Amino acid sequence: MSFDLDTSDPYLAAAAVLRERFAVDAVARDKQGGRPAEQLELLRASGLLSLTIPTAYGGQGQPWSTAFRITREFAKVDGSFGHLFGYHFGSVHGAYLGGSPEQAADLYRRAAAGNWFWGNARNSFSRTLFGRRDGAHYVLDGYKPFTSGSHIADYLQISWLDPSGQEFTLAAIPTDRAGLTIHHDWDGIGQRQTGSGRVSFDGVRVHESEVLDGRRHAGRPFQSVGVLLQQSTLLNVFIGSAQGALIAARDYTREHSRPWIYSGVAKHTEDPWVKRTYDDLYIRTQAATLLADRALNALDQAWGRGFDLTESERGEAAIAVAAANALAGETALEVTSKIFEVMGARSATTSNGFDRFWRNVRIHALRNPAEYKIRNVGTWFLDGTYPEPGIFQ
Amino acid sequence: MSFDLDTSDPYLAAAAVLRERFAVDAVARDKQGGRPAEQLELLRASGLLSLTIPTAYGGQGQPWSTAFRITREFAKVDGSFGHLFGYHFGSVHGAYLGGSPEQAADLYRRAAAGNWFWGNARNSFSRTLFGRRDGAHYVLDGYKPFTSGSHIADYLQISWLDPSGQEFTLAAIPTDRAGLTIHHDWDGIGQRQTGSGRVSFDGVRVHESEVLDGRRHAGRPFQSVGVLLQQSTLLNVFIGSAQGALIAARDYTREHSRPWIYSGVAKHTEDPWVKRTYDDLYIRTQAATLLADRALNALDQAWGRGFDLTESERGEAAIAVAAANALAGETALEVTSKIFEVMGARSATTSNGFDRFWRNVRIHALRNPAEYKIRNVGTWFLDGTYPEPGIFQ
Amino acid sequence: MSFDLDTSDPYLAAAAVLRERFAVDAVARDKQGGRPAEQLELLRASGLLSLTIPTAYGGQGQPWSTAFRITREFAKVDGSFGHLFGYHFGSVHGAYLGGSPEQAADLYRRAAAGNWFWGNARNSFSRTLFGRRDGAHYVLDGYKPFTSGSHIADYLQISWLDPSGQEFTLAAIPTDRAGLTIHHDWDGIGQRQTGSGRVSFDGVRVHESEVLDGRRHAGRPFQSVGVLLQQSTLLNVFIGSAQGALIAARDYTREHSRPWIYSGVAKHTEDPWVKRTYDDLYIRTQAATLLADRALNALDQAWGRGFDLTESERGEAAIAVAAANALAGETALEVTSKIFEVMGARSATTSNGFDRFWRNVRIHALRNPAEYKIRNVGTWFLDGTYPEPGIFQ
Amino acid sequence: MSFDLDTSDPYLAAAAVLRERFAVDAVARDKQGGRPAEQLELLRASGLLSLTIPTAYGGQGQPWSTAFRITREFAKVDGSFGHLFGYHFGSVHGAYLGGSPEQAADLYRRAAAGNWFWGNARNSFSRTLFGRRDGAHYVLDGYKPFTSGSHIADYLQISWLDPSGQEFTLAAIPTDRAGLTIHHDWDGIGQRQTGSGRVSFDGVRVHESEVLDGRRHAGRPFQSVGVLLQQSTLLNVFIGSAQGALIAARDYTREHSRPWIYSGVAKHTEDPWVKRTYDDLYIRTQAATLLADRALNALDQAWGRGFDLTESERGEAAIAVAAANALAGETALEVTSKIFEVMGARSATTSNGFDRFWRNVRIHALRNPAEYKIRNVGTWFLDGTYPEPGIFQ
Repeated sequence: MSFDLDTSDPYLAAAAVLRERFAVDAVARDKQGGRPAEQLELLRASGLLSLTIPTAYGGQGQPWSTAFRITREFAKVDGSFGHLFGYHFGSVHGAYLGGSPEQAADLYRRAAAGNWFWGNARNSFSRTLFGRRDGAHYVLDGYKPFTSGSHIADYLQISWLDPSGQEFTLAAIPTDRAGLTIHHDWDGIGQRQTGSGRVSFDGVRVHESEVLDGRRHAGRPFQSVGVLLQQSTLLNVFIGSAQGALIAARDYTREHSRPWIYSGVAKHTEDPWVKRTYDDLYIRTQAATLLADRALNALDQAWGRGFDLTESERGEAAIAVAAANALAGETALEVTSKIFEVMGARSATTSNGFDRFWRNVRIHALRNPAEYKIRNVGTWFLDGTYPEPGIFQ
Repeated sequence: MSFDLDTSDPYLAAAAVLRERFAVDAVARDKQGGRPAEQLELLRASGLLSLTIPTAYGGQGQPWSTAFRITREFAKVDGSFGHLFGYHFGSVHGAYLGGSPEQAADLYRRAAAGNWFWGNARNSFSRTLFGRRDGAHYVLDGYKPFTSGSHIADYLQISWLDPSGQEFTLAAIPTDRAGLTIHHDWDGIGQRQTGSGRVSFDGVRVHESEVLDGRRHAGRPFQSVGVLLQQSTLLNVFIGSAQGALIAARDYTREHSRPWIYSGVAKHTEDPWVKRTYDDLYIRTQAATLLADRALNALDQAWGRGFDLTESERGEAAIAVAAANALAGETALEVTSKIFEVMGARSATTSNGFDRFWRNVRIHALRNPAEYKIRNVGTWFLDGTYPEPGIFQ
Repeated sequence: MSFDLDTSDPYLAAAAVLRERFAVDAVARDKQGGRPAEQLELLRASGLLSLTIPTAYGGQGQPWSTAFRITREFAKVDGSFGHLFGYHFGSVHGAYLGGSPEQAADLYRRAAAGNWFWGNARNSFSRTLFGRRDGAHYVLDGYKPFTSGSHIADYLQISWLDPSGQEFTLAAIPTDRAGLTIHHDWDGIGQRQTGSGRVSFDGVRVHESEVLDGRRHAGRPFQSVGVLLQQSTLLNVFIGSAQGALIAARDYTREHSRPWIYSGVAKHTEDPWVKRTYDDLYIRTQAATLLADRALNALDQAWGRGFDLTESERGEAAIAVAAANALAGETALEVTSKIFEVMGARSATTSNGFDRFWRNVRIHALRNPAEYKIRNVGTWFLDGTYPEPGIFQ
Repeated sequence: MSFDLDTSDPYLAAAAVLRERFAVDAVARDKQGGRPAEQLELLRASGLLSLTIPTAYGGQGQPWSTAFRITREFAKVDGSFGHLFGYHFGSVHGAYLGGSPEQAADLYRRAAAGNWFWGNARNSFSRTLFGRRDGAHYVLDGYKPFTSGSHIADYLQISWLDPSGQEFTLAAIPTDRAGLTIHHDWDGIGQRQTGSGRVSFDGVRVHESEVLDGRRHAGRPFQSVGVLLQQSTLLNVFIGSAQGALIAARDYTREHSRPWIYSGVAKHTEDPWVKRTYDDLYIRTQAATLLADRALNALDQAWGRGFDLTESERGEAAIAVAAANALAGETALEVTSKIFEVMGARSATTSNGFDRFWRNVRIHALRNPAEYKIRNVGTWFLDGTYPEPGIFQ
């Protein structure tokens, strides 16, 4: 496949098998949007949903680098599924990062046992969901946008504001909770099966035992590592999309493309222009992949430190992730647009569906402007300051 | 609108009015594909279908620069319609370039009187349509792909190979000719209302008086000016798409975009990053437009020379057109992708439809690889040689 | 020469002749730095020093567009001389913009009659030269950096701060004024004969009749047109440098470059890579030139309006100049570096001196960061606001 | 220093100390050109000249990755010295790759014992040196260009053509051999202390025991690994130059640069534009470095295989090196030019000498056009073919 995948790792090998299954109808599913229901069942059957849950709780205890390498594999053919897979794990560890040890243990155990898929409704940009205290419950009214994965989830991470709009509260609840409606109104130009539309809450009751009370660890650098996980999903979807687009284009070029009438060559792949273009795209994709690998290592190390993680250790990981994210997005945009030039006019049909790579990357990159990732790395390079932990950084 | 349009020219003013009408449902029509039927009736009513037919035959006698500036105007909101409008004129003058003076006069007169819209089925890449002589007729069997405009045309320019596959013959026939089937099978990722699918011919009879016999002018440089007209449609669709995308994005940014959470500015348009990005795209678009204007001047001059046009005069025009085409395509690709970064995540919905600009440009650019346009200009710059007249150059 | 030069204009024709003379030892003079003394005498003899002085005062009454097209011609071989020539005219009109009508008339007349070359010591960044009133004189002490042209000038525009550092005063004085020392300490990596080092003032006396008192026109938009003249010198040095570098490289490639061992072509100019590279550089240079021409037209128009110039007219010209300046600088940097790739390893010697083009452009571009030119154009594109007149804009 | 250097490795630590010594007068030595005589003595004293000679012969037995990481360190301040150091090792192993085991052992031993510095006069492009047989000697007449390192070498690798011009013969001789003249005529715009000028041979006698007779291993893939060593010097000089330029610029910016007048910030490093620019250059440099590290690993592995190296193993290493070389060159060119924009106008003096980074990279990149490196990688990506071993690939 031209991009190294260590298939001696059984989890990566399993992911490669799933990838081929997902590829079969990836174009059709991109057109439809909606729910990747069959794909979720295949994933569930593979056991990969518990990949990063510690073995003590029934999971596979694998590192983040493996999870995000699988995100890449899926994104090679299906950006939406790569996205859903990566974000799932962000929620899987929500209680570990933000709740009590007991909650973490309990949710790890039940998630592994139930083979849950997690979605989220915790977008912290929007101030549209409020909860008031009612005895041992909170009662929630309003809605959340950008609820990726909610359309196929068993369990949801959610967040809401108190009535005064001052503070966010986090919780984990099942998706069949009364009063919760998933709207299936995602209308993005790409990442069309991510279900990133709205979830509305009409008097939804959340028990206080479901609330993740992060005060115990408030201010600890480790608590904000969740942001880096989210950013790592973004960047590995970029890497997978770039690699997948390049491989799909290469295969099409070899099998279908004809030499240009003025090229003077017998096969399109012999045109120096075609060689140069593929090479240029390959080199950029490979370099972006190495920077992404470096960020995965940084993340594994940071995660391994747990709540002992220091500010500067967290900062180093944040810089590695931001740098990789910026280059991955830029590279993926370039690759997914340029491939058409060397495939030729007949490649650009909706039935081939090669444009989904660009549409996926284009919309995915808007979740976090490269400009700001870049300024953070620049600040660090200039004076050694790490980005203030916060949304997206 | 920030890009100069000389509305003291009544034809350009009329085009600007039509553009606003086309804009109303441009996004919906991009989704549907199919036929821009209402838009064609509006165009017919405007009188612009006869724009470049000499006044002696009932036309408006306007120069190519006006026709292609109108292509730009339409392409600002609807790349397909810009394309159809430009290609229409290529066929309008088919008999003038390739037939006898009597045929030219006759077809000019009837086209102007009938307010015809022209499509074509003359793609000279494909060797899939053959005609055999049968008395005073030719009988045609086979098909043509990439028949832009055939789905809404009154008249068609067609070409076929003799049974031995040696030579192409050109003719002009009405679209209601028996045996001719328009398949409506265009499946491109963009330019979705151009009807660039297949037309099949099942024993279609063409009378010899309909055949355009170019032998009288064989070898005259002027005869191959038609290629430059076609290239000029391509390039002005790029220019219009880039300008239109930039204006649409600017308006969205002003009205809807929110500042990024870490920007420290009150309005998104005050972010230095947003200013810089718009400027950069504006400067590139403006420079590409000036190069396109220069090509339009070269084309008007070459056309004015008629059959006296020399090889080097034709060559100068060809270089001007190729240079403009290469820069226009590159610029349009960049603009139509980058606008999203400064509009933000909520802009990228299928109901906004901003992605149509990129899809239109992406597929349109594949009709003629920039690499080869560029090599031609380089050859000329290095040793003064003009491109050999031929398909696409 | 591949870039259009209207040699039916006698002034441009004269400039083209001078350009060839300057070319002879341009490489040697770049190495030496210092003073282009012989070149100044050739220029003086050509009559071009009075080019833009109105005919009523003994000048040639030519427009700015002609002056800056000559800047381009000179910069094709000698960036320093292009720079000196352009800045000269900024000072020639200093009294017209900033003094009384009588001063303007007097200085126009004497400059034309004396065939003066003007330099300047009026850099408004540095707060290093102060003047105190002493009867009908000012007495100046301190120094000015970046005094381009002072090393060969007959007359100087100067500016100083009052003792409290509040206000700048402008004046025009001869370079042989007592107490004035020109240090010849310019150490730039390029533009090496511009003499942009320091001038120091040791009790220099300036009579009040030499002071340009701009209060009469204070606040009139026309008064700040001088900044646009300065910016136009910058941008036309970029254009000339890009054109000159490209032509020099083309000629070298044709005459000296050998095909690469794996190219499979007999002549280096037949390598598709070489063609593409030249074409790409040519197209970019041509597009930047057209944007520069548009700025020259805007400048001619603005100048023609004189003190009636409105804010928005001044703003339009400022935007045209800023856009052209940004693209010209970027293009020139790219061209002057890339040419080496298609000339080959043997071209990069100090005796060929092709690197002077890049060094000239590189340092010249630092006088006004592209980032800020670009933000100004972006602001205007986004909300129609013109840049506040000021240093550099 | 912001770019990882493993100073727990004593050789890298020693190199970092030397780098600081070389930095002291690097600007002055760039101006002078000529011989880095003192630097060579410092290097000799450090023991690093025997770094890659097996310990059995008195060397340090270190891998290529260490040697080329040292090339990077030196190139951070002195591109010439990085170049000389890398090429030195190519010649050190000339007998191992191309001679008999006895010759290899003998030359390893003598080189280690004598602490020799090796230069070369074996450029295989030029057909300007011929040798004829005279008993047990060859007699050489003619010259070699591009003899990097010959001006300071103890020993030289040389090559010549037989009188019929059919075949090259390789040998190793001391530089004090009678009849050999080193011309010190290197006139490059950069890499000015590499001594890459001509060496002429006037009846120089070479004994047949000095001839490296490669026939024993003819056709073995390992024999052509020398080319990859040479390419690795090129690419690590690029990496070091990019890193060094970026660090030098960062330090200047922090200490000397002033904010732009319209920036609205108190310190230049707080300008979002400055942050973004540094970040962008840092990310690109870091990604290019990771690709270079990957090539170093590939090289260590290939070298470890010795004469058992298969064609495809050699091919994999060649692709890794070519990909890294292409990106490194491109990145270094961009970094060394763009740094000036964020340092500002006062930085661009010959006494600061920051332009040497660009001049070094610019001329160094011409030794092997990126176009052809890139086409090789593209060919492999498209159909799995490795480049034919040969000069430069």
